[in-house]
Amino acid sequence: MKIIDGKKISNEVLDEIKVLVGHRVKNNLKIPHLAAVLVGDEGPSQTYVNSKIKACKRVGFQSSLFKFDKSISENKLINEIQKININDNIDGFIVQLPLPVKINQEKILNKVNPDKDVDGFHPLNYGKMALGIETFLPATPAGIIELIQRSNIDLKSKKCLVIGRSQIVGRPISILLSQNKIFGNATVTVAHSKSDNLKELCLDSDVIISAIGIPEFIKGEMIKTGSTIIDVGISRVNDNSSVKGYKIIGDVDFKSVSDKVGYITPVPGGVGPMTIAMLLKNTLKACSLKD
Amino acid sequence: MKIIDGKKISNEVLDEIKVLVGHRVKNNLKIPHLAAVLVGDEGPSQTYVNSKIKACKRVGFQSSLFKFDKSISENKLINEIQKININDNIDGFIVQLPLPVKINQEKILNKVNPDKDVDGFHPLNYGKMALGIETFLPATPAGIIELIQRSNIDLKSKKCLVIGRSQIVGRPISILLSQNKIFGNATVTVAHSKSDNLKELCLDSDVIISAIGIPEFIKGEMIKTGSTIIDVGISRVNDNSSVKGYKIIGDVDFKSVSDKVGYITPVPGGVGPMTIAMLLKNTLKACSLKD
Repeated sequence: MKIIDGKKISNEVLDEIKVLVGHRVKNNLKIPHLAAVLVGDEGPSQTYVNSKIKACKRVGFQSSLFKFDKSISENKLINEIQKININDNIDGFIVQLPLPVKINQEKILNKVNPDKDVDGFHPLNYGKMALGIETFLPATPAGIIELIQRSNIDLKSKKCLVIGRSQIVGRPISILLSQNKIFGNATVTVAHSKSDNLKELCLDSDVIISAIGIPEFIKGEMIKTGSTIIDVGISRVNDNSSVKGYKIIGDVDFKSVSDKVGYITPVPGGVGPMTIAMLLKNTLKACSLKD
Repeated sequence: MKIIDGKKISNEVLDEIKVLVGHRVKNNLKIPHLAAVLVGDEGPSQTYVNSKIKACKRVGFQSSLFKFDKSISENKLINEIQKININDNIDGFIVQLPLPVKINQEKILNKVNPDKDVDGFHPLNYGKMALGIETFLPATPAGIIELIQRSNIDLKSKKCLVIGRSQIVGRPISILLSQNKIFGNATVTVAHSKSDNLKELCLDSDVIISAIGIPEFIKGEMIKTGSTIIDVGISRVNDNSSVKGYKIIGDVDFKSVSDKVGYITPVPGGVGPMTIAMLLKNTLKACSLKD
């Protein structure tokens, strides 16, 4: 079993970004600036946003937080987003999801200036991604690709199972890995809640990318010996022994697969840290495109 | 073996469109108008465009053909497209592909007004399609869905193999059939030129959608008994016994699969006629959205 160390790899990516920011400073080029829009403060959203801002500091980016009360109206929020859209000092921004239920998430994401859409969720950028055109790739799939590439895992002609068809993970990673790109060319299957025989599908796969959010769902008996597992699941389960009162568990029963698996990403410390690194990489790109 | 009669089903769709156009006329609403942009006259492009214009007449649409010499410059073509974009009388238009090699196809398709993009190839519409947002679906995948629905084939939880990952067929149909929609919820695998063990993949599938363009590639020994086959392949092969000197052959060796297959689309007369019908359906939609 080889652990794909997302913490280490994400630090490499962040270090590379920091070096590039240093070059920009030396050359009197604009310092990248990432903004985050946060509505309300329920759930782990505030924590996620804080991590993003902390990462900005680490690489020398500017950052801003636009925080709104959960009572904000859809129109007012659109208005605020349009201000950020035309603010030349901000290169990229994200709208932290989920939004309060009364706000139409799709409508809001459509209002983000595609040139600043460093999450890659605007339909225009999503379409480019699906068409294989250069754009901002959504951060989590981009992070998975980075992990695979830096671990020298070649997916060409490999049978790859993506479990989950979400817009932010399952769908884009399934498209990307089957494209005719250096990191792609896998034979990709997308499984989801309506799929039968998930065990059989797993056993038949060289690579499993799991993004279903069911703690320790994938057991050793479900996988092929030597397979690669990318665990995108993040579930909080109660843990009285922890200071926080909970621990983070992935989709994979790590212990049970450890004798059979080839490469595996741990949770935490696998895909998670990569997501922020790739978001910053997109922001650097958004800034550089304006040079 | 049950034949999915694309000719018959496409006629049903065209008849339905004709009825709706009749209603529009009665209610003094605008008559849908489809335009086609044709550059050069090599290959079967002129024939395809003629069929589209003929179908417009059949349902009572207006149609226009903008024909340019193959020597047209990229800028001049963009200029012409922008004129069509702002021509209020034209509801939808297509740029017949392929374009001459010196013209950047991606750049041209990006210039089509997304509201008139009845081929669904603009990245914005393609992104909406991938995100499951209402938009113009590319005509061939939309036609496949129509064939499947009108034949009462339920794909939910079925293993579906899409062979080919093209932007106009393989990629969109693979996305659509795995979405959580009434016509979707299949467990979809995308195979392509870099996939290994295509025979094994076929044998393991309940539904095969083949879009590789290799005449009679799929043989009876490669399919599961009772499976459904949608044949999107269109290859011209020499045929001295035909007046035209060629015949159209699909990806499937029809004779060899006929004892085992459940449902199958013939070539010609399967997916082909549906493509034009769905293009007209998109044009009607583009027109109606402006009411």
